[in-house]
Amino acid sequence: MPYEFRMTHRVEFADTDMAGIIHFSSYFRYMEVTEHAFFRSLGFSIDTRGMGLDVGWPRVHVSCDFRRPLRFEDEVEAHLRVTAKGRSSITYDFTFRKMNDPLTPEVARGCLKVVCVALDPESGQMRAVSIPPVIADRIEVAP
Amino acid sequence: MPYEFRMTHRVEFADTDMAGIIHFSSYFRYMEVTEHAFFRSLGFSIDTRGMGLDVGWPRVHVSCDFRRPLRFEDEVEAHLRVTAKGRSSITYDFTFRKMNDPLTPEVARGCLKVVCVALDPESGQMRAVSIPPVIADRIEVAP
Amino acid sequence: MPYEFRMTHRVEFADTDMAGIIHFSSYFRYMEVTEHAFFRSLGFSIDTRGMGLDVGWPRVHVSCDFRRPLRFEDEVEAHLRVTAKGRSSITYDFTFRKMNDPLTPEVARGCLKVVCVALDPESGQMRAVSIPPVIADRIEVAP
Amino acid sequence: MPYEFRMTHRVEFADTDMAGIIHFSSYFRYMEVTEHAFFRSLGFSIDTRGMGLDVGWPRVHVSCDFRRPLRFEDEVEAHLRVTAKGRSSITYDFTFRKMNDPLTPEVARGCLKVVCVALDPESGQMRAVSIPPVIADRIEVAP
Repeated sequence: MPYEFRMTHRVEFADTDMAGIIHFSSYFRYMEVTEHAFFRSLGFSIDTRGMGLDVGWPRVHVSCDFRRPLRFEDEVEAHLRVTAKGRSSITYDFTFRKMNDPLTPEVARGCLKVVCVALDPESGQMRAVSIPPVIADRIEVAP
Repeated sequence: MPYEFRMTHRVEFADTDMAGIIHFSSYFRYMEVTEHAFFRSLGFSIDTRGMGLDVGWPRVHVSCDFRRPLRFEDEVEAHLRVTAKGRSSITYDFTFRKMNDPLTPEVARGCLKVVCVALDPESGQMRAVSIPPVIADRIEVAP
Repeated sequence: MPYEFRMTHRVEFADTDMAGIIHFSSYFRYMEVTEHAFFRSLGFSIDTRGMGLDVGWPRVHVSCDFRRPLRFEDEVEAHLRVTAKGRSSITYDFTFRKMNDPLTPEVARGCLKVVCVALDPESGQMRAVSIPPVIADRIEVAP
Repeated sequence: MPYEFRMTHRVEFADTDMAGIIHFSSYFRYMEVTEHAFFRSLGFSIDTRGMGLDVGWPRVHVSCDFRRPLRFEDEVEAHLRVTAKGRSSITYDFTFRKMNDPLTPEVARGCLKVVCVALDPESGQMRAVSIPPVIADRIEVAP
């Protein structure tokens, strides 16, 4: 359904730090990789140049809450849900659950709010634009 | 003063992405680097083993709001302020300003909430502990 | 066969830089991720503590030659081959081929030489040790 | 002198891994950051668009040899030397020494060979071009 997507990530060695657990910033990589796989699951790429469009998706707000640590080689499922869709913005919420764990506990919860932008030819600055209909029409807000 | 710290970061090439601007996750690196430099400015290291202590500082909540993009070689000042201090947690707020810019606009605002933990020898799990007094006594909440 | 392993990687957004192509350091991540998946394919983890051993695998030499750029969402196959095995060292060579390309050109070639180490309890330093037989016996040099 | 440059880097928390030491890939970040600071020391940026030029500097060969581990908060001096300069390529050698160490031992040695490229308007591919004289004339090969 075009409002959610699940993807499993493995905690790689370079994702850990000297505390012996995953470095917190790795979750943002997992969120972004999942967001882009969600787009592919809908039939397009976050890089819209292949569709004859030229919009970008900078983040305006991101957050993450961490409940339990993950360790090297842990597998974690990121569950993306679209929780808001505006004229030019999309909000994704993520829950992370550890795989292969009888209790499959939630280890973290995150959020990315992105805005659709285009380069303004006059100012050379990026400005918010309406999400192209070909994309907006394919993405729903989760019930 | 033991409730704030300023540190300048340069946007390096590897911090950028194909959108031509800083990748949003780089701000979390800047926040953490600034947090650790703040500790050094107080006379100790975030790695407390050198002080005969063995506590860690996992993050329980992090966030960032982005207002303007930064580009390669931009210099940005991270201004850390301690905004809360509990028995076992510290909250740092960060504002980021672009240097060498007449209007020095704020480009982003972030937050790290960390908790002081120790390894519980029985369970092998990390559990929250009181911040060691030698550290807690040196850190104030910003007025 | 215990002397080679193939694994596909996707070039993620954070792996690119403002030049619009993959950042060269991403190849070292791919090499290491492939090395660790090779170990899992043999039935063990590079983190040997689960086997009752406590050895590490620091790199002593790494290199990479780049022939063609990769771009966002390109899929690349890393082909690991064990090219040397000493008492305490293993050398892995990697070739990278772009997937879904009629000519599947080689885009890069890399190398990791790793040494098996243990912590010397007296000096507190890491020193080279023989690769534990349970591991050494499972890894062959490619013909 | 326009054939060498020295720059100190601090091993940050995110640069470490669960082995408790610097992750090997961090050295490539230090090499690139030093290369770009070398360019700034000569009066220009590696991003040549500010000079009215549009060339890039992809790496064609990189390597690193590691002798001793570095740990969190270690300071390391990267010493860049230009060891070769061709029509369209530059080779930089790097030695890394640990600071604040009576014996200042060499901890690693690395190499970046870069090629100057421009986008070919017909093919859309990057191709090697002569290093612009304004840059080539300012860079010497170390004696």
